[in-house]
Amino acid sequence: MERDEDLIESYAPDVDDAPAPVELARNSESLDEEDNTLRPGFVRKVAEALEAGDDETVYNLVEPLHPADIADLFELIDRDDRVTLARAINDLMGGEVLAELNDHVRELLVEELEPEEVADLAEQMETDDAVALIEDLDEEDQQAVLAEMEPEDRAAIESALSYPEETAGRLMSRDLIAVPEAMTVGDLIDYLRRDDELPTEFWEVFIVDHKHHPVGTCSLSWILRAPRSVPLADVMKRDQTLIPVSMDQEEVALRFQKYALISAAVVDESGRLVGQITVDDIVHIIQEEASEDILRLSGAGDGDINEPILLTVRTRLTWLVVNLGTAIIASSVVGLFQGAIARLALLAVLMPIVSGMGGNAGTQTLAVVVRAIATNQLTSSNTVRMILRELRIAATNGAALGLLIGGGTALMFGNPLLGAVIGSAMVINNLVAGLAGIMVPVTLDRLKVDPAVSSAVFVTMATDVMGFFSFLGLAVLSGLA
Amino acid sequence: MERDEDLIESYAPDVDDAPAPVELARNSESLDEEDNTLRPGFVRKVAEALEAGDDETVYNLVEPLHPADIADLFELIDRDDRVTLARAINDLMGGEVLAELNDHVRELLVEELEPEEVADLAEQMETDDAVALIEDLDEEDQQAVLAEMEPEDRAAIESALSYPEETAGRLMSRDLIAVPEAMTVGDLIDYLRRDDELPTEFWEVFIVDHKHHPVGTCSLSWILRAPRSVPLADVMKRDQTLIPVSMDQEEVALRFQKYALISAAVVDESGRLVGQITVDDIVHIIQEEASEDILRLSGAGDGDINEPILLTVRTRLTWLVVNLGTAIIASSVVGLFQGAIARLALLAVLMPIVSGMGGNAGTQTLAVVVRAIATNQLTSSNTVRMILRELRIAATNGAALGLLIGGGTALMFGNPLLGAVIGSAMVINNLVAGLAGIMVPVTLDRLKVDPAVSSAVFVTMATDVMGFFSFLGLAVLSGLA
Repeated sequence: MERDEDLIESYAPDVDDAPAPVELARNSESLDEEDNTLRPGFVRKVAEALEAGDDETVYNLVEPLHPADIADLFELIDRDDRVTLARAINDLMGGEVLAELNDHVRELLVEELEPEEVADLAEQMETDDAVALIEDLDEEDQQAVLAEMEPEDRAAIESALSYPEETAGRLMSRDLIAVPEAMTVGDLIDYLRRDDELPTEFWEVFIVDHKHHPVGTCSLSWILRAPRSVPLADVMKRDQTLIPVSMDQEEVALRFQKYALISAAVVDESGRLVGQITVDDIVHIIQEEASEDILRLSGAGDGDINEPILLTVRTRLTWLVVNLGTAIIASSVVGLFQGAIARLALLAVLMPIVSGMGGNAGTQTLAVVVRAIATNQLTSSNTVRMILRELRIAATNGAALGLLIGGGTALMFGNPLLGAVIGSAMVINNLVAGLAGIMVPVTLDRLKVDPAVSSAVFVTMATDVMGFFSFLGLAVLSGLA
Repeated sequence: MERDEDLIESYAPDVDDAPAPVELARNSESLDEEDNTLRPGFVRKVAEALEAGDDETVYNLVEPLHPADIADLFELIDRDDRVTLARAINDLMGGEVLAELNDHVRELLVEELEPEEVADLAEQMETDDAVALIEDLDEEDQQAVLAEMEPEDRAAIESALSYPEETAGRLMSRDLIAVPEAMTVGDLIDYLRRDDELPTEFWEVFIVDHKHHPVGTCSLSWILRAPRSVPLADVMKRDQTLIPVSMDQEEVALRFQKYALISAAVVDESGRLVGQITVDDIVHIIQEEASEDILRLSGAGDGDINEPILLTVRTRLTWLVVNLGTAIIASSVVGLFQGAIARLALLAVLMPIVSGMGGNAGTQTLAVVVRAIATNQLTSSNTVRMILRELRIAATNGAALGLLIGGGTALMFGNPLLGAVIGSAMVINNLVAGLAGIMVPVTLDRLKVDPAVSSAVFVTMATDVMGFFSFLGLAVLSGLA
């Protein structure tokens, strides 16, 4: 491999072309090293300086922070102070800070800006971040901002906006390195050194044919380790994971995770290379999508703590009203047995145990199934096996809980029949819980409905209704009341 | 790009030195391109061939698959077929497949292997994957496997095992490129080309001083773009994100996410560079940790569908028994009001609505707070603000639901007093839910207890007890029953 040495001297040093070192603040006064958060004392200091109108102190405090920490600071201070802070540190508010900001906080700040200021910021950002900034604006503001942008940037953003939200097309960056197969490692290095317009952050080089279809990919580490004379065709990996431009971002994330990708080529319908997706964006999506499941299952919508409070109230209240409906249905089942309850009020004391425990068991199964569906672990290949598995678990747990509560009730109230009734009701309701816990999300998924959004309502209704019905029904049937 | 065409011919191809292209199967018969999963028909074909004892067909079917898809196949087929499959495709069962396997499935297969076979596999793997393989074995098997390994690999794994589970020390890989500051870009490239022992997959080069302390880092893309004569000191980024070797993996993941890292240096207590962590491992952790929250909140433990069923039963039953305790406490509150219920059985019909709705509202707040804590969005800087926010939401939702159910009850049963009682109870229980939903997880977090594990029990108990107590208590106080 030594034989390339003599080529070395032919390149004159050209320090100006080297990327400038990027500074990353590690200020232990502001940052808690243990858990990546800004120290409360620091946040308070900024807030106090803001309130005192002391912009210079604010600027000096914030200046050493990394853009991601500046973004965090905006989220940690009061809503009312956010615009003031943005004004105080105006020239630190670059595209990087904006890209890291929570959507709602960003919206608040962007509202204060003129279209040309937004356009300037968007031009500093990577296409995908600029798209995230602009897609949240209303139609009119979008047009105003786009009109202020350079034609090239504008075209890139308009093309991204032409793809549906949450697809690969929205997510991808158009900045990438694509070269023909005929190049050698040396050609490629020279090309990269020569052209100042190329992106500076990339992790692989895509090899394309004359139709701009990807034919292979080269990790930068392979390029660095291969001799200059080797043709790219010999170092490239021919089979690569391609992402269709219309793929849902959640599936893109799963593909990255499955094949441990750092970046991947995005292709349009005709197979042409149109962009790349890098893993740093994927990390956010995985976090988001997993959070989404937990929040939706609980009926908390996006669960964003920076959301305007009225939006939060509306989302949560909608869910609560739907649940009020199912609670009323369950309560009407109890209504059928008012006579029995009047005769034996103890039934009313014990019935919430049966319905509540069914609810708990149903939630367990539901959480497992929703996550297994979301991570592609539960597919039609193993659905039947999983249903049988859940039923066996439900039967075992139901039997154990039934014996426990049945025996306890019989002893405590000296009433073996009451014990038998509550024990049997517990077994029945655990089976209902297990069955509903898996059948509801699997069915919704088949119907292309997000199982996280609406499963819980159905499962809780099933366990409430069947809990009350089995317990009170058995009590009446057995002649207990 | 056209202008480089004339340069291409000057380099002679040298195929032998080039890294071999890695093949990645994209077989549309086996793989569903839409959602990254193996087709059910393909899985069935493999299962049938396994049952028929036709190992050759099995091998031919599996051979074109990517290791990650082979791992998926093991999870999709029946538990009983897994060892048979491993035998049939013996020489495809490399370290890569094993690294991708679910822990429980891997354990099943590894049990069938001799220590020297496990040692061979571990030696093919990256340190972090080998550690994951070996840490699950029991003490005796661990020693047997380690005894079979090459001293160098053995030392690396023993050193990793000396760090606590789920810390950066366990997670990091010891394979990295570290070079002195005095090198130029050209020196570095020559060094990389010359030394065959170096790792082939890396994303940045760490620059260290004579004590092996990291002083900077160079993205490979910068190295490729800089002229050979430039000293690394001029292209490196001086401030970098360092990961302490004892940091919890969840914090490591948040740090990667926050600063959009691809890889990061891990340093020991004295600041020496001891390893690197790469983002492909982080992607798994983010997925795992977010799943963990949803599963723990629901009392489903790890929620792993490949776990032996007895383990699942034990985890879930433990949680259900704890909840049985709280259900009994709530039911004993109802017991205090048996007299009132005997006089007016309608109270028993309506009471589950109040407790159930409180439970729903509490779960909403809890999910939001648990995620906000896990993602470092809720810190001591904004806790008070968030408590006030949740109380305002609870008051608004409680008022709305109270009016709705109170008005409905008054009309339906022609009893305004009953309407007032249930409406007021609903307001009270929503406030209890909001307060418990945020105070319980925040308090547990301060006490260094994972809020996802035990918050739900306390919150549900609070909403059940207060739901029954406020409704039945107000009914008695108002002279309703």
